[in-house]
Amino acid sequence: MEARALIERKRNGGRLTAAEWRGLMAAYAAGDVPDYQMAALAMAIWFSGLEREEIGALTEAMRASGASLDLDHLPVPRLDKHSTGGVGDKVSLILAPLVSACGVAVPMMSGRGLGHTGGTLDKLEAIPGFRTDLSLAQATRQLEAIGCALIGQTAEIAPADRKLYALRDATATVDSIPLIAASIMSKKLAEGLTGLVLDVKRGSGAFLPALDQGLALAETMIQLGADHGVPVVALLTAMDRPLGRACGNALETEESIMALRGDGPPDLMAVTYALGAEMLVMGGVARSRDEARRRMEVALSSGEALAQFRRIVEAQGGDPRVLDEPERLPQAAEVEVYRA
Amino acid sequence: MEARALIERKRNGGRLTAAEWRGLMAAYAAGDVPDYQMAALAMAIWFSGLEREEIGALTEAMRASGASLDLDHLPVPRLDKHSTGGVGDKVSLILAPLVSACGVAVPMMSGRGLGHTGGTLDKLEAIPGFRTDLSLAQATRQLEAIGCALIGQTAEIAPADRKLYALRDATATVDSIPLIAASIMSKKLAEGLTGLVLDVKRGSGAFLPALDQGLALAETMIQLGADHGVPVVALLTAMDRPLGRACGNALETEESIMALRGDGPPDLMAVTYALGAEMLVMGGVARSRDEARRRMEVALSSGEALAQFRRIVEAQGGDPRVLDEPERLPQAAEVEVYRA
Repeated sequence: MEARALIERKRNGGRLTAAEWRGLMAAYAAGDVPDYQMAALAMAIWFSGLEREEIGALTEAMRASGASLDLDHLPVPRLDKHSTGGVGDKVSLILAPLVSACGVAVPMMSGRGLGHTGGTLDKLEAIPGFRTDLSLAQATRQLEAIGCALIGQTAEIAPADRKLYALRDATATVDSIPLIAASIMSKKLAEGLTGLVLDVKRGSGAFLPALDQGLALAETMIQLGADHGVPVVALLTAMDRPLGRACGNALETEESIMALRGDGPPDLMAVTYALGAEMLVMGGVARSRDEARRRMEVALSSGEALAQFRRIVEAQGGDPRVLDEPERLPQAAEVEVYRA
Repeated sequence: MEARALIERKRNGGRLTAAEWRGLMAAYAAGDVPDYQMAALAMAIWFSGLEREEIGALTEAMRASGASLDLDHLPVPRLDKHSTGGVGDKVSLILAPLVSACGVAVPMMSGRGLGHTGGTLDKLEAIPGFRTDLSLAQATRQLEAIGCALIGQTAEIAPADRKLYALRDATATVDSIPLIAASIMSKKLAEGLTGLVLDVKRGSGAFLPALDQGLALAETMIQLGADHGVPVVALLTAMDRPLGRACGNALETEESIMALRGDGPPDLMAVTYALGAEMLVMGGVARSRDEARRRMEVALSSGEALAQFRRIVEAQGGDPRVLDEPERLPQAAEVEVYRA
């Protein structure tokens, strides 16, 4: 593995073969390619880009650096949603129980807060006792039992991606669409999905504010999914204002519980229904978006979506009493005053 | 020091201030900025370039990361020559004694072999006992005594450059003209020069084969010298064939000794005279290139240049008998056969 020659070729606008991406990322995960060479390569990619085949090969190489969920034995389709991140975006907490209550499995892998945008894992952990660090074996058992698991990227999953992401964060190479797409998809492929819905946030509060960047990411993700047999549908949704009314981990968890009780703010519910409808149609459990919408409304009004969230909270060690008594969530002081 | 923000600004085509370059390179030399951030910055520079002021600030920052020769007390001007490297280029071994025999001081700092091109230090070390790892204090004393010292880049000199150069070699960021120019000049400024002659090799055997790249480097070096009060003259010389007849460290040292005895091949002597004439004119010890040429011819025919090389060899621990008996240099077997 002559990493220097691969860096030089990419720098000069050439392409790396699938075997080269596989060898490179395996060596990087194993510590045989140093961070400084990968940092130079990431910056060369920032400038030179990656061709479609290369993005696919890099994605697969990062997925193959770790283990994957094998869910082919489940009797239902497996759908997930990924958001590029926004302010007040607590959709995952509502969508996962809601959609899995409608007959598809949701093996959802989420992240921590990034920049000014919050992380689903942080919001879930506002529930006392809730654990997101499930092993793949635990997640598989939970999916078999209740059809949903809300987990983080453990050390098992795509370690080359995990390592590269931390490096990109320190080297100003995060905002590269091919690298963003490969990073997202390497984890999604490890979830054993049959379909993925992508929520591309756009507007002043989004991670990629410009419409053209959002569209480019959506298009890249759709191609990448098609190349790996995982259909991807992308929605561009507004992030020029916070989603819902609450911002802050515990407050957003509380708002999510209220939404699962049927009392969610309209903008939050509109985005949740839109994403959920795509998932139910892709999963084949609804023939149209309208039918999917009606099924989700029934799941909410009947209390089935809230009951499903209760099962998830209980399965992952959380205190289910917060669903009935949201005041059990951590409370921030109304006013905090610092004096010198 | 937020290195990530500096990388991002450079990546986006912005410029770093002199204070930022100084802080960054001091932190890098001290190990407080990791290699992976510097590698990303080097690749961003490869793509985005550096403005004239930035090249100067980076050069000065790398020089200031270490110690410098202070030769202001010498009664004569201090001149050096730098070559971009070529096949059979043993000019330094002839030029340094020849020019210093004509009344200027030559504090010459040279390098090792690079790629397919040989290094002056390696050629000098073909002389049994010859040491190039002088401290700055030793080099200063030798310059006071005999007007010439032939040294390598010790740990004292521009350590940030030394570290960055090794990193660039591993990350495919060597062939960046602003980085090449800053690297050369950071060491030359540490020599306390009053003038520098640059031998830019061009042609198929050169490190930068294309004429436009050689010219760009020459222009950058001339600007850089002007900005730091060290006049630079650049000559572009042919490297589409080896210089002289000999290639290989000991063979080139032998050819250099023959040249100092007055028996050098015409192409080698033409380049040596051309560079030497610029040095003697810049140093003010000759009024014209013709006069300089005549002085060098006299120094060779009178034996004074060879005598000066003998002083240098003796001062640096080498065996001076090789000047009279070149067969004392290491001899390669005529044919070496490897059998499995």
